[in-house]
Amino acid sequence: MQDNYYMNIALTLAKGAAYQTSPNPPVGAVVVKDGRIIGMGAHLKAGEAHAEVAALTMVGDHAKGADIYVTLEPCAHFGKTPPCADLIIEKGIRRVFIAAVDPNPLVGGKGIDKMRAAGIDVTTGICEKEAHTLLAPFFQFIQTKRPYITIKTAVTADGKTAAYTGHSRWITSDAAREDVHLLRSQHDAILTGIGTVLIDNPLLTSRLPRGGKNPIRVLLDTHLRVPVDFHIIQNKEAKTIIFCASDAQTKKQRALEDAGVTIIRLPNMSVDAVLDELGKMDIMTLLVEAGAEINASFLDSGSFNKLIMYVAPKLIGGKSAPSSFGGLGRSVMTEALPIEFTSVEMIGPDLKIVAERRND
Amino acid sequence: MQDNYYMNIALTLAKGAAYQTSPNPPVGAVVVKDGRIIGMGAHLKAGEAHAEVAALTMVGDHAKGADIYVTLEPCAHFGKTPPCADLIIEKGIRRVFIAAVDPNPLVGGKGIDKMRAAGIDVTTGICEKEAHTLLAPFFQFIQTKRPYITIKTAVTADGKTAAYTGHSRWITSDAAREDVHLLRSQHDAILTGIGTVLIDNPLLTSRLPRGGKNPIRVLLDTHLRVPVDFHIIQNKEAKTIIFCASDAQTKKQRALEDAGVTIIRLPNMSVDAVLDELGKMDIMTLLVEAGAEINASFLDSGSFNKLIMYVAPKLIGGKSAPSSFGGLGRSVMTEALPIEFTSVEMIGPDLKIVAERRND
Repeated sequence: MQDNYYMNIALTLAKGAAYQTSPNPPVGAVVVKDGRIIGMGAHLKAGEAHAEVAALTMVGDHAKGADIYVTLEPCAHFGKTPPCADLIIEKGIRRVFIAAVDPNPLVGGKGIDKMRAAGIDVTTGICEKEAHTLLAPFFQFIQTKRPYITIKTAVTADGKTAAYTGHSRWITSDAAREDVHLLRSQHDAILTGIGTVLIDNPLLTSRLPRGGKNPIRVLLDTHLRVPVDFHIIQNKEAKTIIFCASDAQTKKQRALEDAGVTIIRLPNMSVDAVLDELGKMDIMTLLVEAGAEINASFLDSGSFNKLIMYVAPKLIGGKSAPSSFGGLGRSVMTEALPIEFTSVEMIGPDLKIVAERRND
Repeated sequence: MQDNYYMNIALTLAKGAAYQTSPNPPVGAVVVKDGRIIGMGAHLKAGEAHAEVAALTMVGDHAKGADIYVTLEPCAHFGKTPPCADLIIEKGIRRVFIAAVDPNPLVGGKGIDKMRAAGIDVTTGICEKEAHTLLAPFFQFIQTKRPYITIKTAVTADGKTAAYTGHSRWITSDAAREDVHLLRSQHDAILTGIGTVLIDNPLLTSRLPRGGKNPIRVLLDTHLRVPVDFHIIQNKEAKTIIFCASDAQTKKQRALEDAGVTIIRLPNMSVDAVLDELGKMDIMTLLVEAGAEINASFLDSGSFNKLIMYVAPKLIGGKSAPSSFGGLGRSVMTEALPIEFTSVEMIGPDLKIVAERRND
């Protein structure tokens, strides 16, 4: 139906700029009059114009009597910008089509009420499922004040992340590694452990051919073992935050702080404590690129939303070669954490498998 | 082009009856006259009519001047049935289209020569790649006298074949397990190790809703530790062959032989020795459904052609939980054995990933 057609365009606009709007949601809007699109817009960055404003600015003086398709309920409150619901009323829009209603307690249905009170015909639920998928990180962040978590792994076809010797460069192809750089640029922060850093001395930046936003680097390093001369400390392309235990060396902390790193001491180095802190920093999306033990901590605490696995077409073998999730593990198959495969594609010669946490 | 159209039908006929023709190849044939299919046939079972005979039998008296599309070069030698090349000549066929030339030294181009000498127009190479894929087990068997080997694994999304406790029932869904039963019925033999048998006491039969040919059960049991009352010994739906070392107990051998099992003693219990013996028994296709150590032996000896992995949407974790390939493993990633992903599909909630050995 035609409403889905226009809403899908609005969703495409929203998706295009997703990952760069944190802590705001990705939103797209399309204005239609007499079966012709007269305005299109997306929210591009927190603090800048909302999607409705961008689309209505393009429309100019022709908004009166037009319809607007917007992927998320227009806001009714004054934030960094004036309420979009007011603008829609003022511009004389006739009908408003909405994909998802805002779960933000500051918005929650208020925009809809305000517009209806002004005599606008408001319809909700157009392409609602697609909108909810796109907005999942924002909704989770608003409701839990914790980031939406994606765990990324790269394994051989026999599920290993390295040879028994620890050798792991490279498992996947150049194409898959570029895809990982894109993934990094689409997250607010990237988390890893001191084990991975000591082995690989990674940069953890987004090295993309057309450039890419670098995520904040988050390192779990209980005893502040990271050498000050390592990339993650010296490279200034991204900010680095280190979580350590309350009894970590003060001297080492000062050396790291002198190099520009933020150190956060936690009385209890748990996944939950780290996520609470990251939430406070408005980190809405977190990519976990870590080793088997940290991955296992996220599995044990039940704290992850999505799993992206790159599987390389090779077999390395090895009873003691590491796999993607370590720890003790669950004791029986019936206790395994259920996930759901949502997409599979080839990236060069590798498989990219995406799965989401199942809540049932 | 039209030749591919008819050859694809012949290939579909061949595929339909593939896996039930061992040690003969799967072959299909289509007879066309004046743009109308007047005969179709496939080889269904060793010792019975070849595809050309089946198709020409359907044609009856109308073969004169017709064309035949056949997936494999017609035979020129007397085997269990008379040469198909002679029949094609005798029936007055005008043109013969062939997908693959036979690498069998008893046939190899002789059928083509004979037909051409009789004035028939012979074209080869129509849909050759598809035919070679279908005929891969037969070609390998003819050339090496060893079975075409498929390793099947069932793992969690984190690559584990069991919890750290050894608990593994069930990893995959009912749908995936039915697919495994179909896979079993498509193989001449199924190989497993004593470790798997002692843990699971499996039947290793093809339990399919419409019935299925049971593969010969092949057990690697160096010291003849399998209990005589186990399913693999007592169940009579399939033959069981056990390979053991030359110093295994004679008394146990007799007890197993009394239960109808064939025992083969090997001076050297290697994958190579086992495959040579299976080849001698005309086993053309072998499904390996074993644990990490036997899988690793096949990996180490480089003896496998295809890998079929069922991946379940669950995470179990566990540093010591077993994965699909054990052994020592290769020491560096660059030494990993290259494979190529050839298909991915969903079977119920599980992923079925098929990969082939790469020879480069």
